[in-house]
Amino acid sequence: MPIISTGSSSAGTSASLLQRSDRLGVTTLTMRAPERFNALSEDMLQAFQHALAEIADDSSVRCVVIAAEGKAFCAGHDLKQMRANPTKAYYQALFTRCSEVMQAIVNLPVPVIAKVQGIATAAGCQLVASCDLAVAARSARFAVSGISVGLFCSTPAVALSRNVARKRAMEMLLTGEFISAEQAAEWGLINRVAEDDALDEALAALTTSICAKSAVAVRTGKAMFARQLAMPLDEAYAFAGETMACNMLAEDVGEGIDAFIGKRPPQWQHR
Amino acid sequence: MPIISTGSSSAGTSASLLQRSDRLGVTTLTMRAPERFNALSEDMLQAFQHALAEIADDSSVRCVVIAAEGKAFCAGHDLKQMRANPTKAYYQALFTRCSEVMQAIVNLPVPVIAKVQGIATAAGCQLVASCDLAVAARSARFAVSGISVGLFCSTPAVALSRNVARKRAMEMLLTGEFISAEQAAEWGLINRVAEDDALDEALAALTTSICAKSAVAVRTGKAMFARQLAMPLDEAYAFAGETMACNMLAEDVGEGIDAFIGKRPPQWQHR
Amino acid sequence: MPIISTGSSSAGTSASLLQRSDRLGVTTLTMRAPERFNALSEDMLQAFQHALAEIADDSSVRCVVIAAEGKAFCAGHDLKQMRANPTKAYYQALFTRCSEVMQAIVNLPVPVIAKVQGIATAAGCQLVASCDLAVAARSARFAVSGISVGLFCSTPAVALSRNVARKRAMEMLLTGEFISAEQAAEWGLINRVAEDDALDEALAALTTSICAKSAVAVRTGKAMFARQLAMPLDEAYAFAGETMACNMLAEDVGEGIDAFIGKRPPQWQHR
Repeated sequence: MPIISTGSSSAGTSASLLQRSDRLGVTTLTMRAPERFNALSEDMLQAFQHALAEIADDSSVRCVVIAAEGKAFCAGHDLKQMRANPTKAYYQALFTRCSEVMQAIVNLPVPVIAKVQGIATAAGCQLVASCDLAVAARSARFAVSGISVGLFCSTPAVALSRNVARKRAMEMLLTGEFISAEQAAEWGLINRVAEDDALDEALAALTTSICAKSAVAVRTGKAMFARQLAMPLDEAYAFAGETMACNMLAEDVGEGIDAFIGKRPPQWQHR
Repeated sequence: MPIISTGSSSAGTSASLLQRSDRLGVTTLTMRAPERFNALSEDMLQAFQHALAEIADDSSVRCVVIAAEGKAFCAGHDLKQMRANPTKAYYQALFTRCSEVMQAIVNLPVPVIAKVQGIATAAGCQLVASCDLAVAARSARFAVSGISVGLFCSTPAVALSRNVARKRAMEMLLTGEFISAEQAAEWGLINRVAEDDALDEALAALTTSICAKSAVAVRTGKAMFARQLAMPLDEAYAFAGETMACNMLAEDVGEGIDAFIGKRPPQWQHR
Repeated sequence: MPIISTGSSSAGTSASLLQRSDRLGVTTLTMRAPERFNALSEDMLQAFQHALAEIADDSSVRCVVIAAEGKAFCAGHDLKQMRANPTKAYYQALFTRCSEVMQAIVNLPVPVIAKVQGIATAAGCQLVASCDLAVAARSARFAVSGISVGLFCSTPAVALSRNVARKRAMEMLLTGEFISAEQAAEWGLINRVAEDDALDEALAALTTSICAKSAVAVRTGKAMFARQLAMPLDEAYAFAGETMACNMLAEDVGEGIDAFIGKRPPQWQHR
């Protein structure tokens, strides 16, 4: 089984490469280059940039799912395409674009959930690490395997090392070896493991829970979480206190508390 | 079972709300508003500020236990009180005070141990996360449940995300769901799980161990641990080296090493 | 069993204290003061500084193993030596030197693997925490036990708290109690536990895997990993993207990708 895609870089349109579907507030972006193990080719990365920019401006979206067609979730960069463009300028531009996509996920106004089947390798594993949440099929496997072709997964390391303990990240990066979905869950890289035929159900449990919440509250949380984590404790508390005071002024909170006290389901304003 | 207290804010005196007891160097602060699930009302927060300030100046204290009366450890903020004061200035002041209490725990000169039974939700979960150590009854449960009333637990997120891996923190914050004591221990939010009827014993194992140590050494450690963690590696080492050199000059260390070499129990100066 | 060495500070030559052996790219540094539980005496620390400086300039080294002779891996500082030199200037110089050794491991151009048997206590536990990877025998045990002689393990805390969750680090530091190899692996302090008679084999699995990789890629990874971890996300990505673009220009990557596409083993330039 290939650990990194070597498929051709000839691509269809952006929309066919990365299909967007919207249902009850859940926007699913499905990578559709299964024959290339959903490699993050230039086209795929552009399609992500386009889709994420649209979602950032779309107040109807409650949460995003990143999914994939075929046997693999995502095998990372398109090695053939990279080999065909052997200049530092090209690589620099490519990694910059990929890093922009990963940071667009972190900075998106709504939570992003990875739905993983098959393999997630190199920048594909980085994609999982960059999401807020992740569920995986029991047969899914994760690796940062660039080292096996002589390329240390430096940009994937950024996301991976912010998800799992450093010796674990270093072992994956230096050996390139796969870990199982169960191991990934034990290490904190993913949230939940589902039986292969129950992956949709496990995902739905998360999306349904998030969509039942106040949109203002969910967006408040997504906007503050990563930001406060980078701050010293006193700054983080000042920022979080201000954020929470603003959140309290949203109509949803009054309704939420009243519903809670009245033991009835809340009726959120912002759906 | 309520996830956040909705009890009245009418309160007794500070001392009756948060009882201090001292025994053999262990100072226990017991929250005593069981009918309100020990909500962190304004009065309760003030009682904490008062008690922690006193302890900070009390050289007889070796370690602090935060405990609770009743079925719940602490259900977070007092929602009814918050709802009755619907201004940003009020909320800002409330969250500032709460953040001050949490940081007073982090900055206290002695270790603080949470003793958890029942539920620890929202700012109650933050209280556990802010302590240096935590033991819980097997039936205890933890959640950051503000999201269920439309209020993302932003200030609890600050403490929680510094205790557990980020995808786990995010799942708790976005879903508001409970985790078990066992899960909390596996994730690093608490240190130990005890059978419900053996919680006192599990706590005593920790307090006895700490009280058997040199007070200078314990205070040195508490003062340096969180501080060095916020520094770059080279700064952290410079600070820790200086700290440790000072610690070496304490009489206790000479006695400790001599006792160790002589295979006898040490007689600490500072008890 | 002593938790910190109290042995004499009389030492042999640097080379006899810390033996270097080189085999197929793997450089093993073996601590050889078993009768003193391989204490990090001044001589031992100097021997490490000397050996690590040599290795830093030796392009033939692919990875380093830190091993130990005797029943203990390393029992930390030499308490008798410390007790015989009771001045702040001495302690400051000693902890500075020790911190320099630990940072030399972090900053070495190649990965460093701890091979742990017996006990690893105080600065011996710090040594394990400072390595990139660690394997341990099932009977190995870990503690930061200075607190038991009145000396909080402040410099070990720097390394330990960057390996394991903070409540776990704090429990070890305050109680001085041992954790098992299995616990250490669950907490992320070490990578793998091997049966006592299979420790060499478990180590070889890691060194063989690393030596089979491109030296350029391995050195790239070691140089970037800890550095990016200390940066904010956007800076980390800019740095990692630049690093990876440079890595792409190495001859090894072309060969690696061609070999991967051609389904044959790669022939690296830099062995």
